[in-house]
Amino acid sequence: MNETIDTILSHRSIRKFKDEKLTKEQIHTIVQSAQQASTSSFVMAYTIIGITDESKKQALMEVSGQPYVKNNGHLFVFCGDLHRANVLGERAKNADHASITETIESTEQFIVTVIDTALAAQNAVLAAESMGLGACFLGSLRNDINKVNDLLNLPKHVVPLFGLAVGYPDQQPEIKPRPAIETIYHENNYLEDEKQAQFIGEFDKKLKDYYNKRSTNTRIDTWTEQMIRKYSNPQRLDVTPFLHSKQLNKR
Amino acid sequence: MNETIDTILSHRSIRKFKDEKLTKEQIHTIVQSAQQASTSSFVMAYTIIGITDESKKQALMEVSGQPYVKNNGHLFVFCGDLHRANVLGERAKNADHASITETIESTEQFIVTVIDTALAAQNAVLAAESMGLGACFLGSLRNDINKVNDLLNLPKHVVPLFGLAVGYPDQQPEIKPRPAIETIYHENNYLEDEKQAQFIGEFDKKLKDYYNKRSTNTRIDTWTEQMIRKYSNPQRLDVTPFLHSKQLNKR
Repeated sequence: MNETIDTILSHRSIRKFKDEKLTKEQIHTIVQSAQQASTSSFVMAYTIIGITDESKKQALMEVSGQPYVKNNGHLFVFCGDLHRANVLGERAKNADHASITETIESTEQFIVTVIDTALAAQNAVLAAESMGLGACFLGSLRNDINKVNDLLNLPKHVVPLFGLAVGYPDQQPEIKPRPAIETIYHENNYLEDEKQAQFIGEFDKKLKDYYNKRSTNTRIDTWTEQMIRKYSNPQRLDVTPFLHSKQLNKR
Repeated sequence: MNETIDTILSHRSIRKFKDEKLTKEQIHTIVQSAQQASTSSFVMAYTIIGITDESKKQALMEVSGQPYVKNNGHLFVFCGDLHRANVLGERAKNADHASITETIESTEQFIVTVIDTALAAQNAVLAAESMGLGACFLGSLRNDINKVNDLLNLPKHVVPLFGLAVGYPDQQPEIKPRPAIETIYHENNYLEDEKQAQFIGEFDKKLKDYYNKRSTNTRIDTWTEQMIRKYSNPQRLDVTPFLHSKQLNKR
């Protein structure tokens, strides 16, 4: 065990922040940490947009429905970005720009941009947490991905993937349990459903106990019930045409 | 500055490992660290497959073309996994399984599974690095994604996204430079191309100097040239039909 692993294992999402802004230095350290993550073929296929404009924060909060999108120490929006590479292709003499654009607009490159962005974001989270800050991912910005795109004036080949609210924690939630390692870590082959079902059954019990006993917001729930509730309602189906309109994930 | 940020900023990919296997405890700590990452709506939409079977490692090395896929302390394959949630839906009484499957097969949920998997993987990397190990992401497994899928016996709604080779470093590469923070961190709006071009120009000079001076494998190259070379050759276009065959990223 060491300090880094302690930071990793102590993670809980923070959804209530003190009214104190991050300093420029803190923001710099967080972004610099994000930049040092691995990146596929050194593409660095992401852009991070910091939101300081209060009217934009308000608008983003309305997209998400979550007050901590407005009330935090700093708000980041992590965007997948293949525009930067495409522009290089457009400007280069002797480059086959049609091939470059064809590559950029493939699903393969969409995967690259999502992975690159997420790796960078996880570094940002751990850097923040190691400094005593808390953070919460905001997939909820995809509730109206077109609106977020317009607010940030994103060009073709750049898409908002998620937000990240960071700040000084004004709550101390318990660490949420995880399923036994065997549930998600298999060896050499994908584990049969029956064996997974056993682990999930055990996890349901553990999680029910956690929800029942935690200090706030107690409820009766299991992982199985949560998943069924969540997936019973198709949502954000407009993400697909949005990506196509941005010329990504096309072929 | 603290130990976690030091670990983050000291990252370099390791592509040559000593002939020493990770212990079960080390693997456990790495996977447990992966599990503690944030996950969209608590879905934990990933499975990590550890490869100990030497013939499978050999086959995966052949897919990637990289010797360190075989020669390492441990090899992980990170898979996006929406099968687990789908099975819960299939088995639940009174659940609308058609809606559940429709949700799971959307591009939105494909984004969720890629992000979840990458966040978990970055925790794994940092946990490993904090223990004195090195790591290298292996997007190269997507060179033949169908073959990797078959080797690991992945069911519908589970796809291999990338590998991660971990082990004791047998090389000490320099830390690769990154562009100035302003290149990828913008405020409130996406930064105009002309301003980005200036930062990229400066980065090209910095990187040229790094490639010229580094201790091994010196060459003359810039980021701009790398990107144009990379994107001029459309590759892995079979990823798209593969995902559809696995019933993901469909609608």
